[in-house]
Amino acid sequence: MSGLSAALVQALHAVVGDAGLIRDAERMQTYLSDWRNAYRGCAALVLRPASTEEVAAVVRLCAEAGVALVPQGGNTGLCGGSIPDDSGEQVVLSLTRMTAIREVDTGNETITVEAGVILQRLQEAAAEVGRLFPLSLGAEGSCTVGGNLATNAGGTAVLRYGNMRELTLGLEVVLPDGRIWHGLRGLRKDNTGYDLKQLFIGAEGTLGIITAAVLKLYPAPRSCNTAWVALADVAAAISLIGRMRQLCGDRLTGFELMSRQSLDFVVRHVPGCNDPFAQVHPWYVLIELSDTQVDAGLDALLESGLGEAFEEGLVVDAVIASSEAQVAALWALREGISEAQNHEGPSLKHDISVPVSCIPAFIETTDQALLAYLPGVRIVAYGHVGDGNLHYNLSKPPGYADADFKDQQAALMQIIYDATARCAGSISAEHGLGQAKREAAEHYKDPLERELMRTIKQALDPQGLMNPGKVL
Amino acid sequence: MSGLSAALVQALHAVVGDAGLIRDAERMQTYLSDWRNAYRGCAALVLRPASTEEVAAVVRLCAEAGVALVPQGGNTGLCGGSIPDDSGEQVVLSLTRMTAIREVDTGNETITVEAGVILQRLQEAAAEVGRLFPLSLGAEGSCTVGGNLATNAGGTAVLRYGNMRELTLGLEVVLPDGRIWHGLRGLRKDNTGYDLKQLFIGAEGTLGIITAAVLKLYPAPRSCNTAWVALADVAAAISLIGRMRQLCGDRLTGFELMSRQSLDFVVRHVPGCNDPFAQVHPWYVLIELSDTQVDAGLDALLESGLGEAFEEGLVVDAVIASSEAQVAALWALREGISEAQNHEGPSLKHDISVPVSCIPAFIETTDQALLAYLPGVRIVAYGHVGDGNLHYNLSKPPGYADADFKDQQAALMQIIYDATARCAGSISAEHGLGQAKREAAEHYKDPLERELMRTIKQALDPQGLMNPGKVL
Repeated sequence: MSGLSAALVQALHAVVGDAGLIRDAERMQTYLSDWRNAYRGCAALVLRPASTEEVAAVVRLCAEAGVALVPQGGNTGLCGGSIPDDSGEQVVLSLTRMTAIREVDTGNETITVEAGVILQRLQEAAAEVGRLFPLSLGAEGSCTVGGNLATNAGGTAVLRYGNMRELTLGLEVVLPDGRIWHGLRGLRKDNTGYDLKQLFIGAEGTLGIITAAVLKLYPAPRSCNTAWVALADVAAAISLIGRMRQLCGDRLTGFELMSRQSLDFVVRHVPGCNDPFAQVHPWYVLIELSDTQVDAGLDALLESGLGEAFEEGLVVDAVIASSEAQVAALWALREGISEAQNHEGPSLKHDISVPVSCIPAFIETTDQALLAYLPGVRIVAYGHVGDGNLHYNLSKPPGYADADFKDQQAALMQIIYDATARCAGSISAEHGLGQAKREAAEHYKDPLERELMRTIKQALDPQGLMNPGKVL
Repeated sequence: MSGLSAALVQALHAVVGDAGLIRDAERMQTYLSDWRNAYRGCAALVLRPASTEEVAAVVRLCAEAGVALVPQGGNTGLCGGSIPDDSGEQVVLSLTRMTAIREVDTGNETITVEAGVILQRLQEAAAEVGRLFPLSLGAEGSCTVGGNLATNAGGTAVLRYGNMRELTLGLEVVLPDGRIWHGLRGLRKDNTGYDLKQLFIGAEGTLGIITAAVLKLYPAPRSCNTAWVALADVAAAISLIGRMRQLCGDRLTGFELMSRQSLDFVVRHVPGCNDPFAQVHPWYVLIELSDTQVDAGLDALLESGLGEAFEEGLVVDAVIASSEAQVAALWALREGISEAQNHEGPSLKHDISVPVSCIPAFIETTDQALLAYLPGVRIVAYGHVGDGNLHYNLSKPPGYADADFKDQQAALMQIIYDATARCAGSISAEHGLGQAKREAAEHYKDPLERELMRTIKQALDPQGLMNPGKVL
């Protein structure tokens, strides 16, 4: 049970009411573990404030009492950033009741939403006014805008539109002392001092609690097509993206790399997924072009770009989707990888990034090192290659014991992270650090950078009550 | 003369050598005032280190001695951010000897440059490898990358490519204690904690000294066209940009608004500039489309977009450039405004931004308020309307005494800034605060925001030696 004083609980209840306070152990459960059930914690209370003012009052009361808060959105994060620790002394602050779309301003090409809005609802609200909100990722049906902001979410559209950071113009934030920073400005240019919103985006709730944001809207594409391309090696993928970018400019909205191993798993485990080619190839890319024009000649552009690449021996085989159903079928091959891998026993998943030009050498040397260390380990390499972002995942060798594979995880991870560090890469491209990668970051991040982060943390949250144990 | 100790001067000399230290009063002059000669200060010394290590050594020595540093690039800023104060105790740290282009990585679509590289040189280096570095502004022949980063520079291409902040992937920064932060990463995704580079971009040298950056490259456009459009009012410009954006997507790379008053001045004072239309119209926009395709049908796109807008009464008249010479002639009308205004006696220049949707009401009410306060005042309104950024400038009424106009400047500025504040706008969209707008920012910025800025400043520069008296 709660280690909070009765007076504090009463004061919190007075702020959020019955609907906003959960003490019942059973009802708290869904707030104490993530959707994969990979992380689990305890909490003194779960609070679900319904407004920015309620969040502010809750934070103020907890700050006065020295109680730590763990902000939480859709709980779909992969690094445990929204899960409390085991102490039972932390309070989970769920933003999921703050679901208002406060304003849609088509003249300014912006939308103002509260932290608890589900990403898919935001995409729909943009579509309702003929606009695109481009952030797109696997969890979009459950993840919230607040979580997307706190983790600076990425996904498949970063190539063209950037991360959540680049999509954000203004924020409303409850600071660690409970004051509200009203930074909800819809300005594309504002150079009147430090850009404070940048501090809170990607900070995983460790510097304050984001309650609302002004986000950018884009013209909705009115044509789109997709190609599936077979390649002899990864270097060809890097050459091909350079070529397609020069040719197509901003029409290039997707460029996803997949290894044969990835496709094998998908074809084996995901119903309805078939290999587009009769022959086996070592690497594939999925290319997506989009345009605001209805008759944009995207098929011709794909044909000419891929045709030239084929002539030069860069592309081995290619198919251009001829229907919406075929577009969906090709994307399903890409989107099925994560699920398919789960059928192959325990896996070790990564989210690293390196400069795009380093990807071929990175994959070649890391593949070798992993196979030398654990012969037969199956490397499921895929990702957003235009962003230098690879989900460089591992499945156990066939016939290998699950427990033995788990024993090797730390060593395998170290091989991958060491290789990433040698390329001046990142051990978390788009998932954040949360609790999962905090220790690894201690090891792999420049000590000066960690010191600067601690300086900022100390300056803004001197009591250390904002999501303690995460990031830092 | 210098109030620095002989020992310190000797130590600084040992770091930078003869070529890097200027004590001669005459030779210091060009470092003590900006290019317009609007701000002038004194200095104990001018230092011109040639490498990051030299910058670090200089900063460390000055930190130990408690000497304030004023970093300086091309000295083209409009707010006096790079000019020392009158005390003669500050040291100017010019980055203009750090001119290396360290790396061009076309596979990663990045370029790594030192702070003293002139913007135009950077643009040329990108063009040499068939790429575009999109930042473009009037001072590009003299301004430096370091200054562009320190002020988060904007310009005419922000509509499509963003400000300098959005073009930056990594930074190398000498911190206030002289340590070097090696943040020169070329990653498009990195979520391993706080995004520290964001602190230094736009901070005008008050938190540290940027010595190098990794910047994004884009495919070079291979076709481009421009239209000049006459409109009955500002609301039509906002409707038109919305329509053109939906139609053209990212092909829309320029959308500049100009009042009749602005065009009048240009036609009167800039040789070779002529009104494209026989009739007089109250407002104009210059529209630029670009594409990576050679035969991109941009003329047809302009014709159909403007044709439909004409049918609906949104557009009064339009001309589409039929040659490169005509494109240049149309851009000359836009680019001549600032110079033309200087021929009309003393002027009061602004750089405000408001949400795009607020621009028509902002201009209407502010025009009225200004004319009520000072009948006959000539309002030279123009700017990057897609960014909500107006250079809302004033020239004295005809026949009005220069001195009288100067006496009215504070009151006129207040009318404009008050109106900007009512629209939740910014008093400095792209020029920064420097010393010029520091006091105004004290008045117009949210006190909590100023407090957060001071907290950051205190945490990173506790001695207050980085460009004191600027921004904060």
